[in-house]
Parts: sequence; structure tokens; C-alpha cells
Amino acid sequence: MNRMISMTVDTNCARPTASPALRGGCVKRLSVLGATGSIGTSTLDLIGRDPDAFEVVALTAARSAAKLAELAIRHRARFAAVCDEAAFPELSERLAGTGIRAGAGPAAMIEAASLPADCVVAAIVGAAGLAPTFAAARQGCRVALANKECLVSAGSVFLAEIARCGSELVPVDSEHSAAFQVLAGADAGSIEKITLTASGGPFRTWSPARIAAATAEQALCHPNWSMGAKITIDSATLMNKGLELIEAYHLFPVEARQLDAVVHPQSIIHCLVQYKDGSLLAQLAAPDMRTPIAVALAWPARMEAPVERLDLAKVGTLTFEPPDEARFPCLTLAKGALQRGGSAPAVLNAANEVAVAAFLAGRIPFGGIANLVEKTLAAAEPRELFLTPVSLDDVLSVDREARRLAERLLQA
Amino acid sequence: MNRMISMTVDTNCARPTASPALRGGCVKRLSVLGATGSIGTSTLDLIGRDPDAFEVVALTAARSAAKLAELAIRHRARFAAVCDEAAFPELSERLAGTGIRAGAGPAAMIEAASLPADCVVAAIVGAAGLAPTFAAARQGCRVALANKECLVSAGSVFLAEIARCGSELVPVDSEHSAAFQVLAGADAGSIEKITLTASGGPFRTWSPARIAAATAEQALCHPNWSMGAKITIDSATLMNKGLELIEAYHLFPVEARQLDAVVHPQSIIHCLVQYKDGSLLAQLAAPDMRTPIAVALAWPARMEAPVERLDLAKVGTLTFEPPDEARFPCLTLAKGALQRGGSAPAVLNAANEVAVAAFLAGRIPFGGIANLVEKTLAAAEPRELFLTPVSLDDVLSVDREARRLAERLLQA
Repeated sequence: MNRMISMTVDTNCARPTASPALRGGCVKRLSVLGATGSIGTSTLDLIGRDPDAFEVVALTAARSAAKLAELAIRHRARFAAVCDEAAFPELSERLAGTGIRAGAGPAAMIEAASLPADCVVAAIVGAAGLAPTFAAARQGCRVALANKECLVSAGSVFLAEIARCGSELVPVDSEHSAAFQVLAGADAGSIEKITLTASGGPFRTWSPARIAAATAEQALCHPNWSMGAKITIDSATLMNKGLELIEAYHLFPVEARQLDAVVHPQSIIHCLVQYKDGSLLAQLAAPDMRTPIAVALAWPARMEAPVERLDLAKVGTLTFEPPDEARFPCLTLAKGALQRGGSAPAVLNAANEVAVAAFLAGRIPFGGIANLVEKTLAAAEPRELFLTPVSLDDVLSVDREARRLAERLLQA
Repeated sequence: MNRMISMTVDTNCARPTASPALRGGCVKRLSVLGATGSIGTSTLDLIGRDPDAFEVVALTAARSAAKLAELAIRHRARFAAVCDEAAFPELSERLAGTGIRAGAGPAAMIEAASLPADCVVAAIVGAAGLAPTFAAARQGCRVALANKECLVSAGSVFLAEIARCGSELVPVDSEHSAAFQVLAGADAGSIEKITLTASGGPFRTWSPARIAAATAEQALCHPNWSMGAKITIDSATLMNKGLELIEAYHLFPVEARQLDAVVHPQSIIHCLVQYKDGSLLAQLAAPDMRTPIAVALAWPARMEAPVERLDLAKVGTLTFEPPDEARFPCLTLAKGALQRGGSAPAVLNAANEVAVAAFLAGRIPFGGIANLVEKTLAAAEPRELFLTPVSLDDVLSVDREARRLAERLLQA
């Protein structure tokens, strides 16, 4: 039942012996995939405050050679790699004479993920993160996971890889980190429900007609968190919460019916776990990703994080309301895909990415996002896109086909 | 640093080998000291729902022979004892022919606490609970503690006894149970602060003048919990929260300065623990003592409790405000006694009991409670009542002397 942590070891894995970090205590050797993004820079900010406690092994970026080189030099990384080969000359030049090796292209991403480390922070956004994060999972190390697709699209395949290689999965997303902390060691039979909180997004109080006609500018105005455009739109549609329910299903020992969301506009409580004796355990924190990152690096210990301390007397009021799935149908679509299982969440995720990009490009209205996802899911079944993926290739193939299908439906 | 759980074993103890319950899992053989009170009846309600899972060893009551006999018969106890010897004939008669042995008087209380059990629920109110709870602590079993005096008045002496005999202390009070649950296994160095919540009592929004003149009827009207008169008055003065801070100091690995209270009128969140990475872990539950009792019986597992499940979307709003120590000086007095240490909390507690009784008897106004406690604390020092107790006798002697002192000051 516990899908989260497994120590089963298989000799096909790169490093069949669990790293010291897995035997408790803070990690030491660290790699960051997606080092120039929001999670990556927060991770490096955190470890940079105690540089003697960590060794940076590898850093990667999509294409920001200048920023990656700067981070690699500041944190004395051993290897730095950009995915975009066109950025290699600049990276190479900036790292010349530093002793830091430069790499580029998909193979270099895999290499960065595979260099022996106690923990790989997997923070590459989107389907591009799948192969490198799988490579990290094969290390037998701790994987601090901030890539949604590994669980949403590749869930069972990814977890099988984690288990096979004796790796350990620790979530970095604030809601899942919250659940991870308050579930610590809980027996599956004692858990009744896991409730993720949702801010409700910028359209929480809007009428259906106003939501349907919302502009990208309005949707990008998130009340609590500063995030990338894609995830901010997902927050406005509540698809983000739906995807998180799917992730939670894979991370924690519960069935789909035991997962739920509650709208909590202040985003102070991140998750609540209800036990069969009536206790609800919750994690609260200021909206700063350095807290869940610190949890992922130090668990089961705790490390100092320079974040704002919550003062509830100052916060004053916390409110809660049920999510309105009539106004936010993406949540219903995600729950349906989770119930459906197999590759349905991968189809949902691919269709949603196409839909959000189309919305941001002005091709469809806000209300068109849920429509396109729904149509894609409906069209996927007769096209045999609902299957039980058994490999990363299966997942990538469903992802590709679902995107094509969504594109065709978009053009129709 | 960790004052809560110790397994140090000493051969002077009645049963030097830790009971199976201490090695994880739910307790089986159970005794309840104070079986006819609020915690006692809630405990029996809970275990009565799964009678095959528990064996009731001993039940005690102050003097309610009829109720005690009924509970002993229903739960198939082996021994039932009343403290008041005048109640023995009735108890004896009611238990005649049942096979349940009857006892009476202080020695029978100690015997009930000493009969081998996996867990003793120590729910005798007031100083009368000290000796029996100490006897339970000497068993090397789990002590589910609901008696305040063992920690407030006898803190260090009681904990030394728990440690010496390899017993395990699990708190039953809702706030401390909350802290116990979210602290589970935490290293002292990772904890920054423990915040207990207080409902604020019936006078939360009242002016100082109105509070000073409050009647017993007004003070007995608690907004959230139905409790005994003494604790309800303590709730209205906030002395209850002050006493709980003292208990928390003994239960958890923190210093006095790391303990605080926040007013939370809905009494939904019971305690928050802040870690050095910015995470706050909290426990929430409906106001039903069967939840913390279930935690105490089953920890580290969980048992089913027939309590209302919290639905935050229905609760809607949780609010928080700083406690106003100017209007509620008992909180300041308790914090001062905690800082002072030694027997100061015992003096505070004794003076408060005298003051609350005087208020309930119409001898002093509501505002006189804090005054009498303050005067007693001030007068205790020159009378050498501030000492470091090393035995239960020391504690009982300070308690007695402080009560006498408070009575004299009351009459003056």
C-alpha cells in the first residue's frame, strides 16, 4: 500500500546500495536538475547559507548558460549541463579555467542525474524532466521531486523504478511536503482522508460568465504565490489541484476516494491528514518554497531555513470553503482521470498543457481550457490512448499522441 | 532534553520490564483511575466499543459507588475501589456475586494503580491523584496522564519516577496530545516553539471592569467544552492555559521561552509546533476527549474513535489573536512560576485552587482569583516555600503549606 518509500534493491540499478542519506539525516552530496528555475534557485539559496554542509555535484538548466555558469561557480559544482546544445559554447566559455566540467544535450542531462549524489533535486518542468528524473531514481539515492509529470503521467512506472533501485522519494511541492511531514510513519489503515488545500486562484469569487471570458492577464495574477505562467493558469482553473490529487495518490498509501481538496484562500495550511481517531494533522507555513525544500533535504531531521515565521495572531483569520466544481470543471476532469487510472492522467496532463499554451497565446478563451481537456479525454479512448504504461517509452508515447490529439481538436 | 519518554529501568520499581505496549501498538490491559469522571467515562465508552481488544484491570472513583459498580460490571473489571471508605459498603454490596473484588481508601487507590496493566489512565482530579499516579508510574507501563498536578506541582519528581521505572508518559489533555502527535520523534534541536491554543474563555471580549465583576454563573459558561467547574473557571481566567504551559515544559524537550499560547476561539486547532525550517505542524479535532484518549491508548498506532469528523469547509473560519495578559493576569503569573521553577508552580496551583473555590463560594470576586494567587506567590518566598522538591512528600508538603497560606491571606 505504501507507495512512497521503498528500499527494495535490484542489481540492474546504477548504485544498488542506499546512500547514507537514506539511513537518516541530512543529505550531503547534491545535484539540482533545473537549477536556474524557481525550485532550483531556492534550493541553492538554502544550501549556499551553509556551504560546508553540502557538496554540489551537478547542476542543469534548459538553456540559460550565463546563469547556470554563475551558479555552478558560486556553489563549486563539479558538472554543469544545458539541455539546449546551442547554449554549450557560452557555458563552456564561462566555465573555462574553473575546473567545472560543461555538458550539453539530453545525454548530459542524464549524466548529471546519474553522477553519484545523496540527493537529486528533480526540478525540471514538464515532460522534459521525465528521463533525467528516471535516471536519478536509478541511483538508489533520495529524489527530491518537484517534477509533476513523473507522478501525474508516469506514476506507477516511476514508482516501480524508485522501488526497484532502492531510491527514496520525498516530495517538494508544498502540499505534498505537508502531507509527507504529518504522515511520517503512519500506517495506511489509520488514515481516513488526505485533504489538499487550494488557494482558489484569482477567480475564486467570480461568476461562471466572468470566468469563461477571463483574460490571460487576469489569470496570471495569483493571490499568494509567484510561479511560472503554466502553473499559475493551472491554479486559476484548479487543474493544479487536480494534478496534485493524482500525485498524492501515487505518493501516499490511500485510495483515490480518500483524497480531496478544500479551498483555503490564505494558503497557510497546506494539507490536512485525517486519522480514524478523529485527529487531523496539518502543516502550516508561509508561502516560501525553501521550507518544503529544507524538509526534503534534511528529513527526518530539520535544517534551518531563512523563511518568515508564521505568527497566527498576526495572520488573524483562516477560511475554508468547498471547491466549486461547476465553476472549475478541471478539478472534476482530473478526479475522473485519477479514477480511470492507467494512462488517463497522462492524457489529461498533455491536453491541459496544449490548452494552457493555446489560452496564453490567445487562441482559446479561459473557459476553453477545460473544454479542450474534456474533448481530448473523450477522443482518447477510441484511439486506444488509455492503456497501462509499463515503461517510460509508453508514457512518452501517450504524452506525444495526446498532445497531437489535443492540437488537432484545437484546430478543428 | 527529552522529558517525555524514557526507558531507563531500575530494579526498585514494581515491574522493571517495559510492558508490550511500550514496544509499539495498542495497549491491552487497562486500568482507569477516576473512572466515573469525564475522562474516565470517555475512556470506557471508547474501549467498550471494542471489548475484545481490551481487558479492564482496575477502576477507581472518589465516592460514586453505584456508578463505579455499574462500570466495573459492564467492563468486566477485576478490581474496583472507592477512595471514600464510607462508600465501601454500597460498592461491596453492588459487586457481590460478580467476581469483581471491591476496595476502599487510599491504599486501595494505590493497589488499583499498581495491579499489572499495559496502561493506566490517570484521571483523578487534583492533588488526590498524585499518589495513585506515582504508583502507576512505578509499574513500568504506559501512563495516560490526565492529572494536572503530577506535572504542574510534581513535574521533575514525577518525571524522574517515570524514567527510573521505565514507564512511558502519554498526555491525554487535548493540547498536549496535539503536541505529542506532531512532535512524534522530533529532535529537540529542530523545535523552535510550541504554541498551545486557548479558547479565550467566556470573557475573551469583555472589558477589564466587567471581567473583575463577573459572576460564577457567567464564568461557568464555557464557549466550547463541557468540563468540571474548577477547570471551567481556570479557562475563564486563562490560568488553565498557564498550567498547561507548565505541563508542556515537563512533557516536551523545550525551554520555557519556547512555549507560548495563542487565543483561538473556535478551539479547533489544539497546538502548533514550529520547526526551524519554518514548518508549523498542528493537530486539529472536534472538541471530544475521546480523540486524545484514543491517541494515548493506541499510539503509535491509531484506533477508531466514534467522534465527529471535522469538515473545515463547514467550520468556515478559524481566528487567532494574542492573549491579553493585562486582562488575564493569571497567564502572566503562571509564566512567572514556570520561569521561577522548583516548587513555584506547586504554590501557584495550590493558591489557584483555594482562590477558585473561594470565588465559586462567593467569597471573592472574579478579579480576586489572580490577586490571591499573586499574593500567595509573593508571601511564599519569605516562608521558604520555594524549594526544589525531590520527593512526592516534598510536593505534598508544599501543596499543603501553600493552601494554608492562601487561606490565611484570603481571611485577612
